Formats: sequence, C-alpha cells, structure tokens
Amino acid sequence: MNKLKSTEELQDFINLAVNEIDLSFEPSELYDPIRYILSLGGKYLRPKLVLMAADMYHLDLTKVMPQALGVELFHNFTLMHDDIMDEAPIRRGKITVHEKWDINTAILSGDVLFVKAYQSIVQADCEMLPKIIELFNKTAEEVCKGQQLDMNFETQDQVSLPLYLKMIRFKTAVLLACSLKIGALVANASAEDQEKLYHFGIYIGIAFQLMDDVLDVYGEQKDFGKQIAGDILSNKKTCLYIIAYEKANKDQRKVLDHYFSHQHFEPKNKVLEVMKVYDAIGVKSLCLEMMAENHALAIRYLNAVSVSEERKSVLFKFIDLLMLREN
Amino acid sequence: MNKLKSTEELQDFINLAVNEIDLSFEPSELYDPIRYILSLGGKYLRPKLVLMAADMYHLDLTKVMPQALGVELFHNFTLMHDDIMDEAPIRRGKITVHEKWDINTAILSGDVLFVKAYQSIVQADCEMLPKIIELFNKTAEEVCKGQQLDMNFETQDQVSLPLYLKMIRFKTAVLLACSLKIGALVANASAEDQEKLYHFGIYIGIAFQLMDDVLDVYGEQKDFGKQIAGDILSNKKTCLYIIAYEKANKDQRKVLDHYFSHQHFEPKNKVLEVMKVYDAIGVKSLCLEMMAENHALAIRYLNAVSVSEERKSVLFKFIDLLMLREN
Repeated sequence: MNKLKSTEELQDFINLAVNEIDLSFEPSELYDPIRYILSLGGKYLRPKLVLMAADMYHLDLTKVMPQALGVELFHNFTLMHDDIMDEAPIRRGKITVHEKWDINTAILSGDVLFVKAYQSIVQADCEMLPKIIELFNKTAEEVCKGQQLDMNFETQDQVSLPLYLKMIRFKTAVLLACSLKIGALVANASAEDQEKLYHFGIYIGIAFQLMDDVLDVYGEQKDFGKQIAGDILSNKKTCLYIIAYEKANKDQRKVLDHYFSHQHFEPKNKVLEVMKVYDAIGVKSLCLEMMAENHALAIRYLNAVSVSEERKSVLFKFIDLLMLREN
Repeated sequence: MNKLKSTEELQDFINLAVNEIDLSFEPSELYDPIRYILSLGGKYLRPKLVLMAADMYHLDLTKVMPQALGVELFHNFTLMHDDIMDEAPIRRGKITVHEKWDINTAILSGDVLFVKAYQSIVQADCEMLPKIIELFNKTAEEVCKGQQLDMNFETQDQVSLPLYLKMIRFKTAVLLACSLKIGALVANASAEDQEKLYHFGIYIGIAFQLMDDVLDVYGEQKDFGKQIAGDILSNKKTCLYIIAYEKANKDQRKVLDHYFSHQHFEPKNKVLEVMKVYDAIGVKSLCLEMMAENHALAIRYLNAVSVSEERKSVLFKFIDLLMLREN
C-alpha cells in the first residue's frame, strides 16, 4: 500500500507536468498567450482534485496526470474566454490575455487551448475513454451554460436564489465534480464511489463559490491582486445581493436599486452604503449558513465513499483549508 | 453490393440528420445562435466527403453520420469565431451571429458548438475512437493555425507563396482531408487508402481555395450574397495578389502598394486599377495553372485508392462540379 500524497507533493508533481507541456509551436501568436496564462500559475485546484481522487484508490498517479492537466487546460481556456466577455483587466494579479494582446488573439488562442485540453484528456485506456469523454463534454457544455447565465444576470433586474445556485453549480461546481469523478474513474473506483465523489464536488463547489461571494465583501484584504468589494463596485448579483434584495424593505431596496444602477458613485461610499443594507439584513450570516449547509452535504458524500478514513485524509484537509481561507 | 449514393441522396440524408440535432436547451441565448447558423444551410461539403468516402467501402452510412455531422458542426464553430475576428457582416447571404447578437454571444455559442461537434464526433466504436479523436484534434489545431496565419497576413507587408499555401492548407484543406479520412476510417478502409484519401483531400482543398481566389475577382457575379472582387476591396492577400506582387515591376508594385494601403478609394476604380496590374502580369492564368497542378495531384491520389472506378464515380463527379463552378 503506497502512502497517500500530500497536497504539497501533488503541487510539485503538477508543477513538473505543467512545465513539460510542449507549446513550442508556430505561429507564436497562437501559443505565446497559452504559455503566458499557464505561467501565471494558480492554485491548481482542479488537477489536485483529479489526483487526490485517484490517490484514494492507490492509482499510480502518472496514469491520470493527462486528465489532471486536461481539466487545468480546460479551466484556463474558460478563463481566457470569460475574461473577454467580462472585460476583466486582471487575472491572477497580471494583465489578461485580451488586454495584453487583443480580443481576436484571446478568442483563437483560447480555441487552441480547448483543443489542447481535449488532447490531454483523451490520453486514457480505450475501455474508459468513452466515459471520460462523455463526462468531460457534458461538463464543458455546462460550464458554458453557467457563464451564459452569469452574463444574463447582468441585464436582469432580479435573479432568484435557485437560479443563482444553478449558475454557480454550472460555472464552478461541475468542473470540480468532474475532476474528482475522472480521478476515481481512471482509478477504477466503483460507479457508486464515482457518483459520491461527483456529488461531493458539486456541493463543495457551491460552498466554495458562496464563500467567495462573502469574502469579496467581508474578507481580509491581504491579496493586492483583488479589489475590495469588487462585486459591489461592478454591480455583480452575488448571493449577498440576491438575498439582500429578496429580504429588503422598501427603503433598503431603494438604496440597492440606487447603487446598483449604472451611475458613477464614489467607490468607498458605494461600498459603505450597500454594506449598511447588507448588515442591517444580516446577509453575511445567511450566506454563511447556506455555505455551511452545502459544506455539510459535501462532507456527508465524502464520508460515504467506501475507502478508509486514512485514504480520505488529504482531501479532507485540503477542503478544510479551502473553506477556512480568509480572503 | 449496395448502390453508391448520389450527391443529391447524400444531401437529403444530411438535411434530415441536421434537422434532428437536438438543440432545445436552456439558456436559449446560448443555443439560438447555433440553431441560427445551422439554419443558414450551406453546401455541406465536409459531411458529404465523410459519407462519400465511407460509401466507397459499402458502409451503412448511418454508422458514420455522427462524424459527418461532427465535422459540419466544427466547421460552423470556426465560421462563428472567424466571422468575429474578420469582422464579417454577412455569412451565407445572412447577417453573422456577432452582428445579429453580439461578440460575447458569438464567442460562447461558438464554444458550445465546438463541444457539440466533439459530442457528435466521438459517437464511434471503441476500437476506432482513439484514431478518430487524434485526427480530429490535430485537424482542429491546424485549422486554428490557418486562421492565425491568415490574420497575420493582414499586417505583414509581404507574404511568400509557400507561406500562403501553408495557410490555405491549414485553414481549408486539412478539414476536407480529415473528413475523407474519417469516412474511410469508420468504414474500415486500409491505412494506405485512408492516407491516399487524406492527401486527395489536401490537394483538392488547396485547388478549391485557389479557385475561390480567382473566382472572387474573375468569376461571374451571379451570387448576390457576394461582393464583387471583395478580396481586392478588403486588401486581402490572396494568391492573385501574392503572385502579382512577386512578379510586378517597379511601377506595378507602386500601384499595388497604393491601392492596398488603408486609404479610402472609390471601389469600382480600385478594382479596375488593381485588375489592370493583375492582367498585365497574367496572374489569373498563373493561379489557374497552380490550381490545375493541385487538382491533378488530387486526382492521382484518388486514382490510387484501391476500390473500383465505379465506387469512386460519385466523388469524381462531385469534385468536377466543385472545380468547374463559375462563382
């Protein structure tokens, strides 16, 4: 029985593999942006989940590394295209691809990155290939749906909480769930375990995103790459806003309508006034409650996976760190 | 021995299959543009090639229809993204997706269309799946390279003929070649035949694109969806331009430089003056010669395919029609 790999060991393992991806192709206009976005690093959350799931079943992790890299490449493809659509200037503290080059470059390099993701994902044994591809395609389509719902929210006056939860499930949670399930699948886990890990991924993904919403406004601002309460400043309809708007009285709703209109406001003042409403309604605790419910559901699914506690320990520790982060 | 299907029968067969593609998903913002671009029809050149290649080997064509649809979906994905990059207002005589909706919609719907293409392509027996996917991924990457080279040409002062041929090979020919090879592959043709059909596709694709360049300027203008000499008006570096520029004397080069600068000219006059240079140099016949060379090479490869003349007859007739079109 091999020892379970620590998060740090997995990080090193992924770093090595990412550095080995061959992107020295022509024309350079197409591959430079891919090298650039990959060089920005990131937490490697998704490939870590692939490897952790596979490691639970004692798989030689080199066997699932192509899939781990594949989901990371896919994630970076979505970032490149989402950043165009969201007109985001900054990604991981650095200038975004469409700003550094231009929109056309970000579209086409993104497309190639998507192909590269597929090329990596399909490096698997023939008997499991159809299942991997089916899951990956379904996930890819859902991630696009999530981005579309998110964009729709910008022009919708009101967004219901169920629709918001659907959006974050598609935009964030399904790729985490897919990562875990692919890891388990390649490691020949039982169909039941694969499903349990998938559901674990869904609920931890939703909890993670709700936490993100809360931290954007209430987190400690250690990370200079991030704007303080950026979601409020950009009129984003987050879980905090949606709950606040649902529970607001007439006056509070007026304040929200006023500051979430597309007028220009002094940033600090806008954040202050909106937070006054949030605090009066108590949306922070309501969101954290919802976050905790999803977190608990996730844990229940992970507990039900039929491997020893010891084989789950790294995954447990990893998500604890994720959920307890302060910014 | 089943009778070979005529081009018309294949067209009907493809029409039926395209109409059966289920795209009734939510959010509609994502799927409406896909339904729209598919409703514009087109010649179904690529799926026809898939089916024709498979029909040469007596395959039950329902078995390869998913791949035929897959290459057509992929082709439409590239059109949707290319039209953004090229700022094209019109596609198949109708307004383009990014103009009818917006750029973000065309990016994200295009991404989903790419996923739909993959979902269709991979509906194949397990033993041939890795080969299909490898070929398709390689082709998809090359098509992106072709588009990038084409975009690079816009800002390059000079483009060499070999680089131009490389561009059209990637942008146009490889997908035709891939279509033929996938058809042969699914029909269990020999590896040699698959390669011959692939090369046939490459050379017919290059010939097809060279013909396109010539017809843009010298074709009969029956098709009101197309602009007369649109390539000259948009300063496109086509085979005609590249050969003209290489062979031009000092005065002729001055004329080309003048009219291919980004100043505004009276359209008719611009076309007339550029065509004077083209005609003095005789670029039309030089391009047609190159076209004929590639056409002949293609025929040589098709002749070498090891099935009876009769099984090749539809494909021969089809490409004759393609190469003899007048606009």
